[in-house]
Amino acid sequence: MILMPTENTHATVSVTVIGLGAMGRALAGAFLAAGHPTTVWNRSPGKGDDLVARGAVRAATAEEGVRAGELTVVCVVDHEAVRAVLAPLADALRGRVLVNLTSDTPERARETAAWAAERSVTYLDGSVMVPTPMIGTPEALFFHYGSQEGFERYEPTLKALGDRHVFVGTDPGLAAVYDLSVLDFFYGSISGLVHGYALATAEGVKAADIAPYVRDLVEILPPIADSTAAGIDAGSYPGGEANLAMMAAGVDHILRAARSRGLDVSQLEAVKATADRAVARGHGADDWASTVEAVRGA
Amino acid sequence: MILMPTENTHATVSVTVIGLGAMGRALAGAFLAAGHPTTVWNRSPGKGDDLVARGAVRAATAEEGVRAGELTVVCVVDHEAVRAVLAPLADALRGRVLVNLTSDTPERARETAAWAAERSVTYLDGSVMVPTPMIGTPEALFFHYGSQEGFERYEPTLKALGDRHVFVGTDPGLAAVYDLSVLDFFYGSISGLVHGYALATAEGVKAADIAPYVRDLVEILPPIADSTAAGIDAGSYPGGEANLAMMAAGVDHILRAARSRGLDVSQLEAVKATADRAVARGHGADDWASTVEAVRGA
Repeated sequence: MILMPTENTHATVSVTVIGLGAMGRALAGAFLAAGHPTTVWNRSPGKGDDLVARGAVRAATAEEGVRAGELTVVCVVDHEAVRAVLAPLADALRGRVLVNLTSDTPERARETAAWAAERSVTYLDGSVMVPTPMIGTPEALFFHYGSQEGFERYEPTLKALGDRHVFVGTDPGLAAVYDLSVLDFFYGSISGLVHGYALATAEGVKAADIAPYVRDLVEILPPIADSTAAGIDAGSYPGGEANLAMMAAGVDHILRAARSRGLDVSQLEAVKATADRAVARGHGADDWASTVEAVRGA
Repeated sequence: MILMPTENTHATVSVTVIGLGAMGRALAGAFLAAGHPTTVWNRSPGKGDDLVARGAVRAATAEEGVRAGELTVVCVVDHEAVRAVLAPLADALRGRVLVNLTSDTPERARETAAWAAERSVTYLDGSVMVPTPMIGTPEALFFHYGSQEGFERYEPTLKALGDRHVFVGTDPGLAAVYDLSVLDFFYGSISGLVHGYALATAEGVKAADIAPYVRDLVEILPPIADSTAAGIDAGSYPGGEANLAMMAAGVDHILRAARSRGLDVSQLEAVKATADRAVARGHGADDWASTVEAVRGA
């Protein structure tokens, strides 16, 4: 591949991507698309042929890969895999910046950060907040924690992956906290989505006939996200507009309808039990945000 | 109150609202705001003073209320309450249109529809798909099932409550199916939202600092709602872009982080168990939509 000059003066930064799962391949593809010399490596062989065809260099070993690039990006299944891959690479990484876009718990993110600090590796722990098709688009969002210097030096390079890179702070694990909190919402949403479609299709209604109204409801979520956050931060959940006791009754209707159609209702039962516990604690006239007290007081 | 002439020629239709909970009050308030002569009644006394101050007439009995209005709208806690209120009103309702905006299961909606049919009451079963503050705004969405003639006659009157009234069909219970399916998504979302905020605040991060990123994630939900519906309707869930096994690992990270902070994890455990069952059935390389098979095969 002949590198073309681009408006991005960072396009000459050479990048190594370790881990060629769906996300790793999307990341490497975005670096290639932005003109970065890109080296790729995966623990198990046979991955990344499409990237090589597009101009990526496949490294024979992880160490060779790290030494080929100025910036190393690792994206594997969890931090246990990160540590297994990185363990023999401390020497190769020294003086380089390592961006770890692997998702895991805050605890493990902190352990990996400590590992890097002990070995003088400039380290950024990041979270990819969008699915693979959005990598490389303006909407793609990433959180980063760790070395502010490393972040500032390579943010223009990371822009190849998407426009929105948020430096959360230097506190180890914070990126994971942001990541997991937002994904907690996300998985609750898509699980409820699939369950709602299961309920509709059990009645012979097509999921596609329900989808437009799901989209309508999605439009009211942003203000709810804000008002719920405000209530939780203030520890005050006035329910003038929406009443937890009423909403718990609403969940019960869904629960009974789903159960009588033979659907698994374990998620709904958990939602209902949490709401009921909050009502029992005196939050019946409060709004849904008050369920946070029942989540905390498990 | 002196009625002002409005552009809406239906503004002279007199309306009775039975049930003055938060939603009933919002409905009555919207009818008043649109200039309709509005009568209100609630089973337990002491509610609706604000509506009376704005010009509503408080009926002494439910029957007096029904007879005062051309259109009767009932919104109470569930269909059991609907039936208790309506039982003595069959004569008063005959020849009138009854719009029941009470939420409940499809089974109960069908029972109430049958009750109305046996008594020659023109009946519409409706679902209010937005919270009370949105009643009377252009965005407010309602589903209706039942008498198409009744719907067509009073749709202009119902527009006082919001612009979007969807006539789902004449099949008893369908409004409830649409209602519950969409709310299934909604409650999954807001439960995940509160749980995510509980996780963030357990780490000392303000919920308000997470909210902007929740809003970002909300933006990717509409295409997911469409693609998930398409997969479920086709019974085909190709996971090229998102892989259930990877997502299940992501849920496990949230689960472990939440558990180690002492939070209730019953909802997450249910989400994880459903994903695991789908993976065990061979959907690991499929996308999240394939979890519908595990929801159905409970």
